[in-house]
Amino acid sequence: MADRVANPVLPSSGVLSPLGLDAVRLLPGFWGDRVALNREVTIAHCREWEEREGWIGNFRGERPRRGREFSDSEIYKLLEAMAWAEHPDLPALAETVAQAQEGDGYLNTRWSGSRYTDFEWGHELYCYGHLIQAGVARLRMHGEDQLTRVAIRAADHVCRRFMDGAETCGHPVIEMALVELYRATGAERYLEMARRFVERRGLPALADIPFGRAYYQDDLPVRQAQVFRGHVVRALYLASGVVDVAVETGDEELLKAVESQWERTVARRTHLTGGMGSRHADESYGEDHELPPDRAYNETCASIASIMLSHRLLLATGDARYADLAERTLYNMLATGVALDGRSFFYANPLQVRVPAQPLDGVNHAAEGGLRSPWFDVSCCPNNIARTLASVAAYLATSSSAGVQIHHHTPADIRHGDLALRVETAYPWSGEVRVRVLEAGAGGVSLRVPSWAAGATLSYEPAPGTAASRESRPVEPGYASIERRWRPGDEIRLDLPMTPRWTYPGRRADALRGCVAVERGPLVYCAESVGDEPPLADVSAVTDAPPVEHHTDGTGGTGGAVELEIEAVHSPPGDYDAWPYTTERESGGGTRAPLRLIPYHRWGNRGPATMRVWLPAAE
Amino acid sequence: MADRVANPVLPSSGVLSPLGLDAVRLLPGFWGDRVALNREVTIAHCREWEEREGWIGNFRGERPRRGREFSDSEIYKLLEAMAWAEHPDLPALAETVAQAQEGDGYLNTRWSGSRYTDFEWGHELYCYGHLIQAGVARLRMHGEDQLTRVAIRAADHVCRRFMDGAETCGHPVIEMALVELYRATGAERYLEMARRFVERRGLPALADIPFGRAYYQDDLPVRQAQVFRGHVVRALYLASGVVDVAVETGDEELLKAVESQWERTVARRTHLTGGMGSRHADESYGEDHELPPDRAYNETCASIASIMLSHRLLLATGDARYADLAERTLYNMLATGVALDGRSFFYANPLQVRVPAQPLDGVNHAAEGGLRSPWFDVSCCPNNIARTLASVAAYLATSSSAGVQIHHHTPADIRHGDLALRVETAYPWSGEVRVRVLEAGAGGVSLRVPSWAAGATLSYEPAPGTAASRESRPVEPGYASIERRWRPGDEIRLDLPMTPRWTYPGRRADALRGCVAVERGPLVYCAESVGDEPPLADVSAVTDAPPVEHHTDGTGGTGGAVELEIEAVHSPPGDYDAWPYTTERESGGGTRAPLRLIPYHRWGNRGPATMRVWLPAAE
Repeated sequence: MADRVANPVLPSSGVLSPLGLDAVRLLPGFWGDRVALNREVTIAHCREWEEREGWIGNFRGERPRRGREFSDSEIYKLLEAMAWAEHPDLPALAETVAQAQEGDGYLNTRWSGSRYTDFEWGHELYCYGHLIQAGVARLRMHGEDQLTRVAIRAADHVCRRFMDGAETCGHPVIEMALVELYRATGAERYLEMARRFVERRGLPALADIPFGRAYYQDDLPVRQAQVFRGHVVRALYLASGVVDVAVETGDEELLKAVESQWERTVARRTHLTGGMGSRHADESYGEDHELPPDRAYNETCASIASIMLSHRLLLATGDARYADLAERTLYNMLATGVALDGRSFFYANPLQVRVPAQPLDGVNHAAEGGLRSPWFDVSCCPNNIARTLASVAAYLATSSSAGVQIHHHTPADIRHGDLALRVETAYPWSGEVRVRVLEAGAGGVSLRVPSWAAGATLSYEPAPGTAASRESRPVEPGYASIERRWRPGDEIRLDLPMTPRWTYPGRRADALRGCVAVERGPLVYCAESVGDEPPLADVSAVTDAPPVEHHTDGTGGTGGAVELEIEAVHSPPGDYDAWPYTTERESGGGTRAPLRLIPYHRWGNRGPATMRVWLPAAE
Repeated sequence: MADRVANPVLPSSGVLSPLGLDAVRLLPGFWGDRVALNREVTIAHCREWEEREGWIGNFRGERPRRGREFSDSEIYKLLEAMAWAEHPDLPALAETVAQAQEGDGYLNTRWSGSRYTDFEWGHELYCYGHLIQAGVARLRMHGEDQLTRVAIRAADHVCRRFMDGAETCGHPVIEMALVELYRATGAERYLEMARRFVERRGLPALADIPFGRAYYQDDLPVRQAQVFRGHVVRALYLASGVVDVAVETGDEELLKAVESQWERTVARRTHLTGGMGSRHADESYGEDHELPPDRAYNETCASIASIMLSHRLLLATGDARYADLAERTLYNMLATGVALDGRSFFYANPLQVRVPAQPLDGVNHAAEGGLRSPWFDVSCCPNNIARTLASVAAYLATSSSAGVQIHHHTPADIRHGDLALRVETAYPWSGEVRVRVLEAGAGGVSLRVPSWAAGATLSYEPAPGTAASRESRPVEPGYASIERRWRPGDEIRLDLPMTPRWTYPGRRADALRGCVAVERGPLVYCAESVGDEPPLADVSAVTDAPPVEHHTDGTGGTGGAVELEIEAVHSPPGDYDAWPYTTERESGGGTRAPLRLIPYHRWGNRGPATMRVWLPAAE
């Protein structure tokens, strides 16, 4: 058995090395509060719904089988969440799962009688992928037990059945799961199996379908692709697995291929929030520059997959741009996907909602945006949020020979070797980040300066009573480092300028033409209208004055927040009962009044609402 | 047996009465050429593909059954096309269909062994609807024969099975088919059955589905609806049937309900081309003001349904606005749906295509836009085009106690009573429409003046050698009439101003903000780029000078055309490999050069192309 560092991703090489969850302990704050809510509320909520919907009963052999063909995977994602959260319900749920495993390691409640008859839509390997990820989490947090044995037996079955041949799964995830199991156990067959799954794809390995083979990235080999395409979650899970294979096999060409696909995708197929996916029909990217705010799909799971991928690329390269996108996605997508109560979720995350959706108490049969729901027919997102929040500390900090890197600024205790640090900050509300030395040690401490933070300063404040003098210097976006022998009480202070900024879309983003958005720090803002608040359909933003900040108190369970106010033109409604295309441009005139903006991740918490991130710029 | 007027829609009351296909004979010209091509090429093309795909074989009992659950309906639409076109292949195809009818009139190649087990998706009543429409066409063009007997037996089976109860079909069309069969036969049970299907809908009558009951207009009774919603073809077929029921039962409230739904839909949910449908996922309308040019779905069949509905409302009310929308839809949707070769078709009709689609020789498995294909997995559109072009003369002219109305101006001979008229025009290329009297008669002759044609003039030019003097007067949009005793050689001349015009979207159409389009007469224009022609991604339109006309010769098989040239700014491409959202607005500067625009209905005939109707307005 190999490592016991408790982190979902532990590459054996790369520029940066992850720290374990035991080395990064979240404290109350933006992420610490969410992780606590996840552990206390969301995990139990998911368990309850999976029982109610019969998806757990499927493992007990209850008939008729219930749920979609991939519902087993939801239980595995929940098990992974429980593993990271050291949740006491794990062993009992793992026991239930174990009952359904067959003698040769096969495990699937849907296809047991007709194994491997539908690689395009069957999701059998996909389900194993999530099972193996749960097993790895358990192995790293706890050590061998029933769940890890079930996962390893399944992985061995996969290797025996699929090592030779040309088959793969319509939904990737097995690739990264197998590499991680290799990393956790040292057994090379898992890496080899993952490598083969990656190389088989696009030869092609799967049948053509109405969506086209690009839907499941089987249109061309991953080395030849120029951009992420097709179903977003599939594309990003695959790319994550490809990075893992590339890193473990030293395949630089493969790594570069993913880096360049990432670059083009981020430049042309990514919404302001970091969300990806512009088409509902096939949950896919759409084309370059196709970025509709109203029909943005931006599946919550896709944002999680994007964070997973960016994190892997960050570890491999140390390039801050990957942490920049991860931050954008963490604060504007992951934090948006779950309501402040921890019990209702967004599946799709549009940037504009014209008609308020009615909240549901029961299952939401659709995956439309604008509607936080307790559960879905396809309920990937709640469980994916649960496992991601349970392990989110894994993304915050890394180490290298140069010392410790802090990528995301949130209250936490971080330990690396002898050095113990405490991060204190009200980020993202405040741009002041203090890193205090709790226990002495040597080496560099690097803090990420986000790409939007031009004008940041980094200061060193020596512990009271020491000879060293205070230092302060401007720092550029990227990483700002101080290396020294640290003493308890020493403090590093990063000051990030948090002035709200107007943000404009690129010219080719046709759906955003003539619009402007507001950002502050890592947060995207939006206007929201609930009940009889002024409607948003005829509002435009006046950009000649800067947005004004309003610091609000801590109602809502996640501490204080910063809201913004801008000047807006409220135009009188036009004649919307006549043919709307005319030889005269409709005037944008109207009355001026302030418009309140809230962080995008907080929208949809006050009841049925309309919302928009992109506001027409007043003429 | 009742009427033998050969027209698909023959209401027993209403402001206007249809003329038969024998009374409106198309001559070579915009529509006459297309009708000839349809008869000579398209009908045989459809027949060939339906044989090749096994959909005709299904009626012969060939196994395994092939095609989708509703493929029978394609054969029925083709039979209807053959009936209107008096095509010699009809009897043989009808004979094949007749073989599959069961003793009690039931007829469906998919559900024969499991009748009426899936009203949501089974399409059994939908298939009957198309069968009955084919039967009515045959009855009116030819009289009773095997096809009409099959259709009537099926209709009688439907009345016996469904008169009592609460069931209806997930896909409307049976309603209007039954009313038309009532009109054709006088048997009141068909009307009563149609009325009950209409009134049952929305109580609700069908199960909830992930798309929601609005998908098949079962979310609320038709009398309570405010707007067309859900699946567009379903919505418009239903509304057509509702108008038919309202007219035959004298139900003014029901008629008014549809009129007001039409009004709101046209004002808020209709693309510039007359196309309807903004969502691919469920082929649905989307919300008010949701009008994306790139993802406009605008199914060809939806445009046909829209023409059917507008025509019914025109007959019932005489209101020119219905003819206006029908004209827009005829010239910019129906004419677009089929290529100039008559053998390849658009399913979806977007207003912007960023990436050229590769044409297919075989079946197109998707219904995406930008790709004219010979056949589709769901091949409703080719057959729907075939039956509509075969009967398009039915929409051109009507009669009333006041005389004859000419709604759409295209070369044709029109007879009403003793009066015989010949319409001569190069419309829509020219705005000059001449109506010459061939045979003497009395009464009014009305010509529609389209809503865009402010400044039109109507002239009377007496036959050479007669005492009457020439008259000329300005006429307003609506109908312009002259009433007199007509002599052979008398001529009416309508002059419609055809100056190209800049057209702007309404302010709430977010996806069109900052853009402008060009129209001329009834035609919407677009820019198209094929091969190494200048790309369209960075083009914007300079609107301070009017578009310049270029009259082209008749290459392409449909006579001459008018293309336009505008001044455009061609901006240098930006940096599309960097994060696209910035604090500075991207400049729209660049070089000026002319940009050629072609009629939208002619795009996609020169090979893989990019295209856009809405152009950014240069700053």
